[in-house]
Amino acid sequence: VVATTDSLVEGVHFRLDLCSARDVGFKAASTNLSDLAAMGSRPLTLLANLCLPGGREESLAIGITTGIRDACRRFGVGVSGGNLSASPGPVMVAVTALGEGLGDRFLTRSGARPGDDIWISGPVGDAALGLKLLSDHPGLARRFASLATAYRRPVARVELGLRLRETPGVTAAIDVSDGLVADLCHVLEASGVGAVLDLDAVPISCVARRFASVVGADLRATALCGGEDYHLLVCARPDVRAGVEFLGLERIGRVTARKGLKIPGIRGGLPRGYRHFT
Amino acid sequence: VVATTDSLVEGVHFRLDLCSARDVGFKAASTNLSDLAAMGSRPLTLLANLCLPGGREESLAIGITTGIRDACRRFGVGVSGGNLSASPGPVMVAVTALGEGLGDRFLTRSGARPGDDIWISGPVGDAALGLKLLSDHPGLARRFASLATAYRRPVARVELGLRLRETPGVTAAIDVSDGLVADLCHVLEASGVGAVLDLDAVPISCVARRFASVVGADLRATALCGGEDYHLLVCARPDVRAGVEFLGLERIGRVTARKGLKIPGIRGGLPRGYRHFT
Repeated sequence: VVATTDSLVEGVHFRLDLCSARDVGFKAASTNLSDLAAMGSRPLTLLANLCLPGGREESLAIGITTGIRDACRRFGVGVSGGNLSASPGPVMVAVTALGEGLGDRFLTRSGARPGDDIWISGPVGDAALGLKLLSDHPGLARRFASLATAYRRPVARVELGLRLRETPGVTAAIDVSDGLVADLCHVLEASGVGAVLDLDAVPISCVARRFASVVGADLRATALCGGEDYHLLVCARPDVRAGVEFLGLERIGRVTARKGLKIPGIRGGLPRGYRHFT
Repeated sequence: VVATTDSLVEGVHFRLDLCSARDVGFKAASTNLSDLAAMGSRPLTLLANLCLPGGREESLAIGITTGIRDACRRFGVGVSGGNLSASPGPVMVAVTALGEGLGDRFLTRSGARPGDDIWISGPVGDAALGLKLLSDHPGLARRFASLATAYRRPVARVELGLRLRETPGVTAAIDVSDGLVADLCHVLEASGVGAVLDLDAVPISCVARRFASVVGADLRATALCGGEDYHLLVCARPDVRAGVEFLGLERIGRVTARKGLKIPGIRGGLPRGYRHFT
C-alpha cells in the first residue's frame, strides 16, 4: 500500500467566498489522488480529517464530505472514514489517500536522465487564472466559467498515471501543484540534472488566452508559475515519443546534463511558485 | 490494511503552555495507535499532517515530528511521511495510522452481549487530573509528576490489543479517549445492550487519590468522565475470565439486556465526557 497526505487550510489554500465547502472537499480529495496518480498508483480509499469552527460545523461538514464523495465517485475510489474536530481557527481539511502497492515498477521524481524529453498532460495556468477571475473579476465568472471550474474542481489524472506507469521509457513524473517551473525544478533537483524548456510549446488553453487579454494578465508568467492545475509533468526517453504522444501529452522541453533550468526567451529570475513559509 | 485518522488542535486538545510541541507530537501519534490497538491491529506506519502558523514553524515542526518519532520508536512503528502547511490559525496535527489487516478476527465496539463482563486495562482519571494539575496547580507539578506524564505522554496499549484479539470470548473493545462512561456508552449503543458499572471496582491510582485529596478534586467524576487515559475497555464472555485477568485487566461491571447504563451509588445525570460541538 502507498499512502500520501495533504491538507487545505482556509485563508491559505482557499477562501469560502470564492468556492463552496463542497468544492473544498472535492479539491482536498483531488490533490491527494493526484499525488497517487503521479506515482502511478491506483487509489483504494481516502480518510478525511476535518477541523471546523463551532457554529458553522454542520453545513461545513456536510458540504466538505459531499465534495469528497463527488471526487471519490468521479475517480472510482471508496471513502473509508474520517474524523471531525472542533477548532477555534480556520477550516482545515486533511486528507490521506491510500493506493495500491507498486511492486518494482513505479514513477518517481528522481529518474530523469540527460536527453529525456519533458512532457505535460494538458494546458497550464487555467487554475491560477480561475482564482484571479473569482477574486478580481467576479463579474466575468460566467463568461469564463471553465477557468473557475479548473480552480474549484481540479482533476486528478488517475488513469493517465496508471497508463504512464505501464509505459516503458517513462523515467520521472510529478503532478503540477506548485507551478510548472517549481515542480519541474523538483524533478530536476531530485534527478541531479537540468533542463531546457521550450516556452512556445507550453500548452495554454484558448479560454486562458482570451481571459488574459481581456483583463491584461501576464499569460506567460501564469503558465510557468501558476499552480493547482494538477496536470502530470513527465520525463521519458526520446525513443518512446510515439507512445507518450499517444497518451495525449505534449512535449515541452528536454533534460540536460548541465544543471539548472533554462527557458530561452525568459531573462532573469522567475518566481518559483507558491511557498508556504518565506 | 486498516487505517484510522485523528487530529489535535491547539486550544481544543492542547495548550502549548501546558505541554511541549514534542508532547503534542507524541500524543498525536499515541491517540491514533490507540485506535488501532482497540481493533487489535498491529500498527505499520504513520503519516502526519502539520498546519503551523508562520514565524514559529521551524521549532514547532521539529518538536512535533520528534515527538511523533518518540512514540513510533516506543511502539515499534515506522513513520512513512507527511505534509507541512502554513496556517493563519492554531497549531494542528492530523495523524493517520495504518495497521495490519485483520482477516476475520478483529475487535469492534458492537459485539457486546448480555452477560458479558466489562473490563478495563488500568486506572482512569490520571490524564484528566494531570491536565488539572498543570493548568490549576503548576506548583504541585513536580510532586505529582506521573499525572502530568499521563496527560502529556499517553500510552497506546498496542501489545494488549494484539493479545486481546487472540483471546477467544472477547466480544468488544474500545480505547478510553472521551471518558469511561462516554466510551462505555459508545460500546453499549453499538451493541444494542445496557450495562451495570461497579463504581468501587473502577481502578483509580494512588497518586490520583492523593492529588484529589490535596486539591479537593471530585475523584469519582474524574474517573468516570475524565478522558485521554487511552486504556482499553473490553467486554468478554464470563467463561474466559481467567484469560482476561491474566492480561492484567480489572473487572468493573457487566453487560445487561436492558438498555442504558446503571451505576449504583450515582443518582441523576453524569456528564458524558468531552463533546466537540454542543
